[in-house]
Amino acid sequence: MKLATYKDGSRDGQLVVVSRDLTTAHYASGIATRLQQLLDDWNFVSPQLEDLSQTLNSGKARHAFEFEPGKCMAPLPRAYQWADGSAFINHVELVRKARNAEVPESFYSDPLMYQGGSDDFLGPTDDVAVPSEDFGIDFESEIAVVTGDVPMGSTPDEALEGVRLVMLANDVSLRNLIPAELAKGFGFFQAKPATAFSPVAVTTDELGDAWQGGRLHLTLQSSWNGKKVGMCEAGPEMTFSFGQLIAHICKTRNVRAGSIVGSGTVSNKDWSKGYSCIAEKRAIETIENGKPSTEFMRFGDTIRIEMKGRDGHSVFGAIDQKVAPLEG
Amino acid sequence: MKLATYKDGSRDGQLVVVSRDLTTAHYASGIATRLQQLLDDWNFVSPQLEDLSQTLNSGKARHAFEFEPGKCMAPLPRAYQWADGSAFINHVELVRKARNAEVPESFYSDPLMYQGGSDDFLGPTDDVAVPSEDFGIDFESEIAVVTGDVPMGSTPDEALEGVRLVMLANDVSLRNLIPAELAKGFGFFQAKPATAFSPVAVTTDELGDAWQGGRLHLTLQSSWNGKKVGMCEAGPEMTFSFGQLIAHICKTRNVRAGSIVGSGTVSNKDWSKGYSCIAEKRAIETIENGKPSTEFMRFGDTIRIEMKGRDGHSVFGAIDQKVAPLEG
Repeated sequence: MKLATYKDGSRDGQLVVVSRDLTTAHYASGIATRLQQLLDDWNFVSPQLEDLSQTLNSGKARHAFEFEPGKCMAPLPRAYQWADGSAFINHVELVRKARNAEVPESFYSDPLMYQGGSDDFLGPTDDVAVPSEDFGIDFESEIAVVTGDVPMGSTPDEALEGVRLVMLANDVSLRNLIPAELAKGFGFFQAKPATAFSPVAVTTDELGDAWQGGRLHLTLQSSWNGKKVGMCEAGPEMTFSFGQLIAHICKTRNVRAGSIVGSGTVSNKDWSKGYSCIAEKRAIETIENGKPSTEFMRFGDTIRIEMKGRDGHSVFGAIDQKVAPLEG
Repeated sequence: MKLATYKDGSRDGQLVVVSRDLTTAHYASGIATRLQQLLDDWNFVSPQLEDLSQTLNSGKARHAFEFEPGKCMAPLPRAYQWADGSAFINHVELVRKARNAEVPESFYSDPLMYQGGSDDFLGPTDDVAVPSEDFGIDFESEIAVVTGDVPMGSTPDEALEGVRLVMLANDVSLRNLIPAELAKGFGFFQAKPATAFSPVAVTTDELGDAWQGGRLHLTLQSSWNGKKVGMCEAGPEMTFSFGQLIAHICKTRNVRAGSIVGSGTVSNKDWSKGYSCIAEKRAIETIENGKPSTEFMRFGDTIRIEMKGRDGHSVFGAIDQKVAPLEG
């Protein structure tokens, strides 16, 4: 099934079930009003939502209405955890090669992950508000999963069983704040403003064969100011599966229902696939020409992130955002 | 007023109002069942809880019962944000001096903060479960605040207005995992297991004059295996106020209601005050003798963290935990 959260003026919005083709939706009010309720009580709530989803998909839902992505908050407008991996090691290799740094051997067996803020996510068409263009505004097109409870000590296989929903993310980064911040030693903080998510989150059965080995084997499209800049394969080059990423968190703590775990920037060795973040394009330029020539985003720039299924239809709807100055 | 969350088998527990002297409590059920509800709608809910608090404190609440800290979850058993500062620069100086490293000048004007996991907090008397003693188990006695909404771009003064509640925290650290993790560049992750909080969270008016300039001017007591090892002043040497810490987060994003912000290990220049984490004791030993002699915590060890008001009474109740092996 496919789920979205409609804006209603409240902090958590209203849960809606969305048809497979993303044309119609139905309030889930009789079953659950917020997505977190489903995650808290999956075995009880999900069968009821599945029933509604089937009725909606068969065109028989009485109070169905046209689905409008512009009315969506993030599927989880706020969450108890947002942990983002850097699971495409090619991305790490490129960025490091551009600054003549080696990739430590351990990076191929021990995932890089950072803990992100999760109290204030952006909806798929919300503006990316940034105080200054000088911060080096970049998008990052990613895959993200939402988990159920996964106990401390879980193996990657056990952790993978905890995946409940899949969605897309735009993990906005402020590149010019990163070097000083990482030099302080405590990781990303101000360099990572609010993350945006796709209009709908989907259960893994909606993905069919494309969901395999804890990876999503489809093409992630990124369009910057209307120009397609990335057509990156999200599956085969994902060094660490979502099972491995979740198990990494579980080494020393429990992961609780409603945690969101990200793949990091989707990245391919074949440069002709394009890029899922500007930093990578600049790394390639640096490797080729000694310096970057592509600038970061400006106020007014747009970024659209989408993924088509093997049937050619959008799976999650599109993240479609504009970068804007912070008002105030 | 003083608030706690009682275990009831649910993920968020039951909100209770606790008397000033921590002897009696009363369910807040008619007003709000979960603490997050209060934070989401402070202006509407808090006056009702204040009324109940006054009735309870005057001994006139009809359904009051004995308050038992052992029945408490963390005041917020899960939260949308846990951002922990390292606001006592003396702690940073000590740790760096022990390894012959300088403290960069910027550390005195730009706070160190890390984003912590917030999906699975520990109650004040819950065991600290760790997979291995070899991880270097340490406590960290801290002050923490819970915020309302604080918009991006807020000044420290504006941010301070967003403080709703104050509590104590035990930000457990796994010291032997830290060097390798920080070397990866993305900050703490596996080195920071679940954080524990005091039985009650209190509004700032309960603190009287002790709450001044965004700092809590009282003594934080830490007892390890029943031995008092720290009697540290939490106020005067806190380099960055809670207003400054919250404003640091607000530089590039909104802080939303229910965010928890920590002070980092409370630390004093006067070594006779003792220590609020073992790492600091070991740093002092290294500075004095060339190497540390105090070992980290073992399974079965206990840690008690408490703070007395100027009237000699416990303000928040005690965090009183045992370190235990992970069962499984």
